[in-house]
Amino acid sequence: MRLSHYFLPILKETPREAEIVSHRLMLRAGMIKQQAAGIFSFLPLGKKVLDKVCDIVREEQNRAGAIEILMPTVQPADLWQESGRYNAYGPEMLRIRDRHDRDMLYGPTNEEMVTDIFRTYVRSYKDLPLNLYHMQWKFRDEVRPRFGVMRGREFLMKDAYSFDLDYERGKIAYYRMFVAYLRTFERCGLTAIPMRADTGPIGGDLSHEFIVLADTGESEVFCNRAFLEFETPGVDTDYSDDKVLTDLVTRWTTPYAATDEMHDEDAWQKLPEDERISARGIEVGHIFHFGTKYSDPMGARVAGPDGQQVPVSMGSYGIGPTRLLGAIIEASHDDAGIVWPKGVAPFDVSIINMKVGDGVCDEAAEKLYRAAKDGGLDPLLDDTDQRAGAKFATHELIGIPAQIVTGPRGLANGVVEWRDRKSGDKQEMPLDEALNRLAAGAMQ
Amino acid sequence: MRLSHYFLPILKETPREAEIVSHRLMLRAGMIKQQAAGIFSFLPLGKKVLDKVCDIVREEQNRAGAIEILMPTVQPADLWQESGRYNAYGPEMLRIRDRHDRDMLYGPTNEEMVTDIFRTYVRSYKDLPLNLYHMQWKFRDEVRPRFGVMRGREFLMKDAYSFDLDYERGKIAYYRMFVAYLRTFERCGLTAIPMRADTGPIGGDLSHEFIVLADTGESEVFCNRAFLEFETPGVDTDYSDDKVLTDLVTRWTTPYAATDEMHDEDAWQKLPEDERISARGIEVGHIFHFGTKYSDPMGARVAGPDGQQVPVSMGSYGIGPTRLLGAIIEASHDDAGIVWPKGVAPFDVSIINMKVGDGVCDEAAEKLYRAAKDGGLDPLLDDTDQRAGAKFATHELIGIPAQIVTGPRGLANGVVEWRDRKSGDKQEMPLDEALNRLAAGAMQ
Repeated sequence: MRLSHYFLPILKETPREAEIVSHRLMLRAGMIKQQAAGIFSFLPLGKKVLDKVCDIVREEQNRAGAIEILMPTVQPADLWQESGRYNAYGPEMLRIRDRHDRDMLYGPTNEEMVTDIFRTYVRSYKDLPLNLYHMQWKFRDEVRPRFGVMRGREFLMKDAYSFDLDYERGKIAYYRMFVAYLRTFERCGLTAIPMRADTGPIGGDLSHEFIVLADTGESEVFCNRAFLEFETPGVDTDYSDDKVLTDLVTRWTTPYAATDEMHDEDAWQKLPEDERISARGIEVGHIFHFGTKYSDPMGARVAGPDGQQVPVSMGSYGIGPTRLLGAIIEASHDDAGIVWPKGVAPFDVSIINMKVGDGVCDEAAEKLYRAAKDGGLDPLLDDTDQRAGAKFATHELIGIPAQIVTGPRGLANGVVEWRDRKSGDKQEMPLDEALNRLAAGAMQ
Repeated sequence: MRLSHYFLPILKETPREAEIVSHRLMLRAGMIKQQAAGIFSFLPLGKKVLDKVCDIVREEQNRAGAIEILMPTVQPADLWQESGRYNAYGPEMLRIRDRHDRDMLYGPTNEEMVTDIFRTYVRSYKDLPLNLYHMQWKFRDEVRPRFGVMRGREFLMKDAYSFDLDYERGKIAYYRMFVAYLRTFERCGLTAIPMRADTGPIGGDLSHEFIVLADTGESEVFCNRAFLEFETPGVDTDYSDDKVLTDLVTRWTTPYAATDEMHDEDAWQKLPEDERISARGIEVGHIFHFGTKYSDPMGARVAGPDGQQVPVSMGSYGIGPTRLLGAIIEASHDDAGIVWPKGVAPFDVSIINMKVGDGVCDEAAEKLYRAAKDGGLDPLLDDTDQRAGAKFATHELIGIPAQIVTGPRGLANGVVEWRDRKSGDKQEMPLDEALNRLAAGAMQ
């Protein structure tokens, strides 16, 4: 993309309403614009990162055997009356009346609707296990939305729902999502630690939150240092092998880890002091195994091997991609701006032409731009006539992993400067070498 | 995808509520489930086709220089009060009151919000032309939703918005979208004819609808047969060349073409009879150039080259991907089911194993499945234990372009059967030849 043809509205001043760093940086980098309290537009840079995050989430859901569907945002109230949650949910639920005076709502989650889909079509245990997920906008009418996309009212959520013949098989489905979540967060550049969690309005008795450690986190968390050394399950993990899954989850749930709400001070004090990490955390995912809480009242039953009708055992599994954007920035930024992990960066490389209109600079920048494209990279070419300081500040702010600077002085000696956004390392290198590296798809 | 692990709930009986063929076939093929009047879930097969359509729309928008953003579904009412449309829109607008009693609405379109984004950031003519688009769910509370996804209440729309310094430059932006739409519909397997249109509640004085001819179309249309011979603009069309664009649009708007509403019987009668086509049509896209209708009241101004502040000249450009699914099926089906055009088919090839459990059949089917994947194709392997008749009926119904049948009799002679869904042609071919074709990515 050529910056002169792009829409990247950088703000020089920090908007006053932003209380936390990710909100400030997303506004300043032209990623989002607030349209109402807790409701945002995603501008081109924000949309690109959101797509990258969604692609990772989707790939890992598919790899774990979940199947993508798409449920609507607006739901009829009667489904929620069947489950008993219509009255229980409270003012966070955005209730709507349509032109025919029917009670509707903007879905805050989809347990009821997916259970309705299941009971409409599935009759036999032979069609299990089944895991259906979708990525759709949700609305929760928070009384005080804040922290930008971290606690918005309209937000994107990936929610998956598993259906199994009994509670134990449902646990294996839960483990599959548990492992998929570890992989998802690692690919987003995050260290996320699973912690036993309260089940809240979703219900059930087995639940984990995935918590990212960040100084600016919303809540206090406690965990064993051992987690920081754990290796994330690999791309070749066999999701059909119950033992593999059970062993992985056992490993990741054995050391002490708890949110403030679930913290057990006695157990904590028994840990050697050098194993304890007490830190701030951000919730980035939440999984639940709630058995027959919805299938029973809503009549989602299948015939088992013995012909008996049994309500299916269910779980639900949520990740908020819009919230993840904020969490990634909270975990990865410096004074100059965002430092995108490579897997989710909106562009792979910034090519910064320091003297647009200068034949030598323009030619070198164009060549680098084309080499990057040939190498399968997604480059951002800064071909604007801004002054040098503003250009550097912009590219530091938007945090593309690599920056290549073409200036007249360097090019007089046949070199460009290659900067690494994360480390700050700068290195001069012959233009040809930079071209070769880009054409080979290398970002460093 | 292995069908035994997929979720494809085929209906044997035609649901009574479906009045038109696309609605019937989408329900029977397990593509959608109605959740409330005019509100649908997209099941896995429907979601896959929707993604294919969206990818095509997105590629052609990007090619024409439009930039993707993402605006929220819920909008504050005050933006619509500024433009004057809040009261004008009527009961089709789904009005919502949030927990703090603020008036909100579920966006039926986004002229106001995108104008708000523009006026917040853009100050100079130097930042023009600009075209921002998004693909987001919309809600229009139709008094009588019907025809499945063709006239739903909650539907997906790609809406683009162009911003230019004056009316004439705005026309070029309009032409870019005009050409992009021709390309988009052709890639979806459709013949779409642009027709002068009424502007309705969007406003403005230049507008075209893109109409697909189909016997089951919703309205009567009239056009010159010449359109059927026109070549769609190629992938190398230069969207930066005003003359190229103007010539293309002139060509595509010169022969007679009109919807019922805009029909001029006198002009029509002057055409030679063998040039006239009077047919049924389905609207699949609608574009508008409305100048300063929103920028003026909402204060979206830029400084021109002379320093004067002028309201920008705008257009908006809509395609409904969910509606397109219905239109494609209306235009391409037979008595046995859907016949997907190759560009939007949910899978490239069905591999139908006629005797699951038979070693020879299983091995051949597995090899074909892997060869297709190696060839970059997306195959659906029918590894279920359904009887032959049901299998054939399912694959005819879901309309994958190619079907390869592995049965014990054929394999005893080393052959499989390759069927073309559209023509119905069947041909026996050696298994090795089928493997080679698939591995080379060939679908016929």
